Amino acid sequence: MEQVKIIIVGFGTVGRGLAEVIKRKKDHVKEELGLDIRLVGVADLRGAMVDADGLDIDDALEWKCEIRDIDSLQLIREGEYDLMVETTPSNVETGEPAFTHIKEALMRGKHVVTSNKGPLALYYRELTDLAARSGCSLKFEATVGGAMPIINLIRNNLAGNRILSIKGIFNGTCNYILTRMTEEGLPYSYVLSEAQSLGIAEADPSYDVDGIDTAEKLTILANAVLGMDVAYNSVAVEGIRRITPDALRLALDKGYVIKLIGEAREGKIEVAPRLIPKDHPFALMRGTLNIAEIEADLAGPITVMGRGAGAIEAASAIFSDIISIYR
Amino acid sequence: MEQVKIIIVGFGTVGRGLAEVIKRKKDHVKEELGLDIRLVGVADLRGAMVDADGLDIDDALEWKCEIRDIDSLQLIREGEYDLMVETTPSNVETGEPAFTHIKEALMRGKHVVTSNKGPLALYYRELTDLAARSGCSLKFEATVGGAMPIINLIRNNLAGNRILSIKGIFNGTCNYILTRMTEEGLPYSYVLSEAQSLGIAEADPSYDVDGIDTAEKLTILANAVLGMDVAYNSVAVEGIRRITPDALRLALDKGYVIKLIGEAREGKIEVAPRLIPKDHPFALMRGTLNIAEIEADLAGPITVMGRGAGAIEAASAIFSDIISIYR
Repeated sequence: MEQVKIIIVGFGTVGRGLAEVIKRKKDHVKEELGLDIRLVGVADLRGAMVDADGLDIDDALEWKCEIRDIDSLQLIREGEYDLMVETTPSNVETGEPAFTHIKEALMRGKHVVTSNKGPLALYYRELTDLAARSGCSLKFEATVGGAMPIINLIRNNLAGNRILSIKGIFNGTCNYILTRMTEEGLPYSYVLSEAQSLGIAEADPSYDVDGIDTAEKLTILANAVLGMDVAYNSVAVEGIRRITPDALRLALDKGYVIKLIGEAREGKIEVAPRLIPKDHPFALMRGTLNIAEIEADLAGPITVMGRGAGAIEAASAIFSDIISIYR
Repeated sequence: MEQVKIIIVGFGTVGRGLAEVIKRKKDHVKEELGLDIRLVGVADLRGAMVDADGLDIDDALEWKCEIRDIDSLQLIREGEYDLMVETTPSNVETGEPAFTHIKEALMRGKHVVTSNKGPLALYYRELTDLAARSGCSLKFEATVGGAMPIINLIRNNLAGNRILSIKGIFNGTCNYILTRMTEEGLPYSYVLSEAQSLGIAEADPSYDVDGIDTAEKLTILANAVLGMDVAYNSVAVEGIRRITPDALRLALDKGYVIKLIGEAREGKIEVAPRLIPKDHPFALMRGTLNIAEIEADLAGPITVMGRGAGAIEAASAIFSDIISIYR
């Protein structure tokens, strides 16, 4: 029985979702895969909970374990663990604190699994080179598309294929807003407020509605599976703020809907609202679903769709990444 | 550089497609993955071509290499190779000759990759147990959905998830016939003839139109990724022969199309024509595309679509299986 000691750095929605998944699945994974997964540490701004034999997850979720006065960096540097899961809030300008966390863990020979887009969109080569030099895995399926399989899908199931392009809907908030505007003929500002009150959009929605989130995901995909070497700030980005109910109605009359589409291929990496024919799979994506169309040289066109957000969905992607490292 | 000596048994459309893919991709795979893939033997009813250093693939495709008077079984038993690709014609009644070929290769400690549904639909446990006892891999992504990723997708990318159900369109021939009947209002017999003359349907179409092919694929999925232990002949099967243009038109008037759907979940495994709402992704599948909706306990609903048939598409799935064994 192989033991896998895990620490979670950043204990917000996704980190807590993962703790929940570990609790639900640990016996199953022991039996089926011979992996003894233990959560031995958790850290966020409140401090850290540590137990080398494995924390009681119910207690950890309620911060009822003994809380030590050490910060995330100390846990990463001094903790006894095999794998760090990094789920602190993403920062698209600096990549911090995740960038430092990931480097510190990799330099110590620890595997890293993350859902944090910032550091990968900004420092993809640096981080993957460091992982390679350290002989460690750095996995990040959850950074793109939540539970929708895409990075590992291309790397494993389409191994041997050259990926010619990836095109899709990668932001559930924009998709929710555009769907509501189209179906109800409502203006952007009204639907945005509605989405904010439902928790689908943030108080400051710019990260989603200006296409930044989609651009980050595209940058990660371009580097990770399209063999490109692109910087996040080289993506041409247009968001959805200026789309009017009139434009949507006009499109609909002609048999189209408007979706915020991210597309990456050699020589082009772009986020923009686009007209999509009503009988195209992209047009069916309502609410917060994500979809991606992958064009591969041997397999041809492959389309995947799934829930782009959600704590358990992201945790599912992280959990599969963890398992794949040890299998 | 790891050397991988491959033999292909059954050198029809798919086997030849794989030889083509090996030719196109061998340098790439050498550079990127450090795998030196060599085709060292090919056998079908015409005899065998063998070269321990690697056959010239262009010559092999035209049967211009030296042809030896040995049969497939002799090549499998006496050949020097690491991995057998089995692509003989599938037989749903006996699983032969593939069943014997696969057993003979596994017993000799050779890995096996196959696109052959018969033996897996009939003898799933026997073959996977034998592979486990021999310490060999038995991979069969190409048996279901051609280039559409599904088996490895679930095993790798959804690792840790319990799969609650799989539902989809798994037969391109039926889907082509139903699409044409719906769009043109043409009767079954007319469209069948058309499909036959286009090479989309076989001279004896029963394997496709009676749902047998879909039932075989469902059986493989149920055993391989749903944790069920089902026999092929326990699938409830209804085909598409009795569907009339009137039924399709009536459905269309009510906002539905009719598709041949295979569905597997605990306690139910069934192939039947079903009404699908026009705005469901299944309804968009025209021609020979395949689609599958997977319901997973953590990831939620995941949908995949891709080309369900084609020599290069099937070869792509086989090629990815080969790479995954050595990575």
